Amino acid sequence: MNWREHLAHRSQNIKPSAIREIFKLTQGKKILSFAGGMPAPGLFPVARLTEAANTVLDEQGAKALQYSTTEGYPPLREWVAQQLDGASPEGVQVVSGSQQGLDMIARILLDPGDKVAVTAPTYMGALLAFDAFEASYLPVSIDDDGMELESLERALESGAKLIYAIANFDNPTGITMSLERRHGVVELARRYGVPIYEDNPYGELRFEGDDLPHLYELAPDLVIYGGTFSKIVVPGFRLGWLVADPELLTTVTRTKQASDLHTATFTQMVAYEVLRDGFIDGQVEQIRDYYRKQRDAMLAALEKSFPKEVHWTRPRGGMFVWVTLPQGMDAMEVLKEAVSRGVAFVPGGPFYTDDTGGNTFRLSYSVATLDEIDIGMHTIGEILKSVKV
Amino acid sequence: MNWREHLAHRSQNIKPSAIREIFKLTQGKKILSFAGGMPAPGLFPVARLTEAANTVLDEQGAKALQYSTTEGYPPLREWVAQQLDGASPEGVQVVSGSQQGLDMIARILLDPGDKVAVTAPTYMGALLAFDAFEASYLPVSIDDDGMELESLERALESGAKLIYAIANFDNPTGITMSLERRHGVVELARRYGVPIYEDNPYGELRFEGDDLPHLYELAPDLVIYGGTFSKIVVPGFRLGWLVADPELLTTVTRTKQASDLHTATFTQMVAYEVLRDGFIDGQVEQIRDYYRKQRDAMLAALEKSFPKEVHWTRPRGGMFVWVTLPQGMDAMEVLKEAVSRGVAFVPGGPFYTDDTGGNTFRLSYSVATLDEIDIGMHTIGEILKSVKV
Repeated sequence: MNWREHLAHRSQNIKPSAIREIFKLTQGKKILSFAGGMPAPGLFPVARLTEAANTVLDEQGAKALQYSTTEGYPPLREWVAQQLDGASPEGVQVVSGSQQGLDMIARILLDPGDKVAVTAPTYMGALLAFDAFEASYLPVSIDDDGMELESLERALESGAKLIYAIANFDNPTGITMSLERRHGVVELARRYGVPIYEDNPYGELRFEGDDLPHLYELAPDLVIYGGTFSKIVVPGFRLGWLVADPELLTTVTRTKQASDLHTATFTQMVAYEVLRDGFIDGQVEQIRDYYRKQRDAMLAALEKSFPKEVHWTRPRGGMFVWVTLPQGMDAMEVLKEAVSRGVAFVPGGPFYTDDTGGNTFRLSYSVATLDEIDIGMHTIGEILKSVKV
Repeated sequence: MNWREHLAHRSQNIKPSAIREIFKLTQGKKILSFAGGMPAPGLFPVARLTEAANTVLDEQGAKALQYSTTEGYPPLREWVAQQLDGASPEGVQVVSGSQQGLDMIARILLDPGDKVAVTAPTYMGALLAFDAFEASYLPVSIDDDGMELESLERALESGAKLIYAIANFDNPTGITMSLERRHGVVELARRYGVPIYEDNPYGELRFEGDDLPHLYELAPDLVIYGGTFSKIVVPGFRLGWLVADPELLTTVTRTKQASDLHTATFTQMVAYEVLRDGFIDGQVEQIRDYYRKQRDAMLAALEKSFPKEVHWTRPRGGMFVWVTLPQGMDAMEVLKEAVSRGVAFVPGGPFYTDDTGGNTFRLSYSVATLDEIDIGMHTIGEILKSVKV
């Protein structure tokens, strides 16, 4: 059967993930990778999760293994609501990882051709979800304080139907939106009557400075908030949550029911076990300390090894540093040379919706050792110094 | 914010699940329910799953908790491929329960208005998935041997883009498609060049007779097969699999990546632990024995308590008996009276795509005790005898 002829319009142009294609370059090689956004596995609380799994099976028995409600495990929904000012359990939908949150909001809000305002660059996984429903994009420029308001307003004037934002320790740039900008973004969204999707996978991973209010907390009526278990505990449970106006949540829940009935009962209960009793507070502190040291090592290595013409961000949290090469330099060429020397990162182009960003790339400091960070940045630095601009 | 104005076209007419609405009737009441399709929780192998969870965390550690590949855990894909003649691991996509398989195939194959050939009646969860992508329907009539071929051919002539079939112990009817019909359905599909989605949640639950080849096994190039862990072990893991032509699977995997990256690593590994070592064979035998006794009790109770003008199916496996009342009788009215007497079932209307079936209903024998089955059927029988046709 020629399957291409049978595909729906939305599926005819599904592109392979750019990151996947890049990773093919590294197959079969021993690579020092700064590419992935995976959390450091050494931080996974294996013993505590084993204990929690046993507790759940012992205390809940068959209930932990049966079908359950589409909205999610009620105590987990309550826990989530307690984390956010303005949220109520009725506004919480448990999802199978934050990618499913993006997927569901895309399918609920976006008709083919609808425009989404996204920063340039923005998270590739969000573009994957929006692309799947044939969205188009209005790129919004950013500086060290996050979205530039004039640029956002132009996007809203041009008919943006949704604003997508990562206010804390952005992927890929590491940038944190300032308090002033948060207020500005919410005010513009309100003035134009456009909802915001606030994706917050990294919010707990703050190394310095005070927590800022979430966009959701500034406007719970028009912000849809996406949170996840992946970066604070483990990603392998595929567990996240959407928080939204309860009126919208009804549609979210019906969409979830059609998509996969509900998220696994068992993993929801195990997750709740480690979230509820204060264990998570110590866990988050440990993660912050770890990634702070990783970031410090990477910033020091960049300072030491990268040429002066290259710029990079100084994240206050999260997992990523964003590098900008002088105009005209091609990060993909740098990557090819780096891979041949056993080092990898993600070139920036695929994070843009308008074919720009060829001179940028993303570095993750989450999984390499401190020594590997030093060696890896040295290698990339050598390549950058040898390339003619 | 008025969210209705912001919804995409596909989301503007999402209906609440008919079953959910019906269940609202029963809230706060002590109800003897023959409505749900839930497996009997007493059959869940809690001890074995606890052991398996500990083994996985002990042996795999952080690997069981990290991100993993979109296609699924390789040994699980191999196990699935071994279950089906004609399948290879490259053609297996692990999904988060069989509902997600339906959802993904709907979104990959169906443009708004595309026609799906479905039996009348058919599985409500499939309609939910197809509705979400604005499908329309061509109902195919059935008899005790499954889909009637002339009716299927008319649907194909009318432009069906996909055939949806549950060949084994159908939900809701309990009917099993005969070998001859299986060949006939596959031949028609091939002649018209239309793919088949074969949904097989109940295939292992055979009480009598020999296993028949799956539609997939008769035509692996044009059948997409959906299987699940829910009915053989537990539903609370949300774990299933799609098996398809590897050419189509590439698109399935990319769609899965956009939907939720991958199914939980941990539950895939735990499931594989209980599937791989032969435990599952004893488990399936136990489940068959249990449900066979349940079915026998229900058929005996129906024989004893239902009036002669009422007809019902005699399933050779699965969980459901399908009841047809004389024309003109309204199963919804019977349900209301039954609920007032503390008994529930699912009226048949919502299983049809053409507003027929008002005189039908589904009985599940999966969770009630043998005594409860006798009492429940007596109650419904009394109501049926008292209603004027």
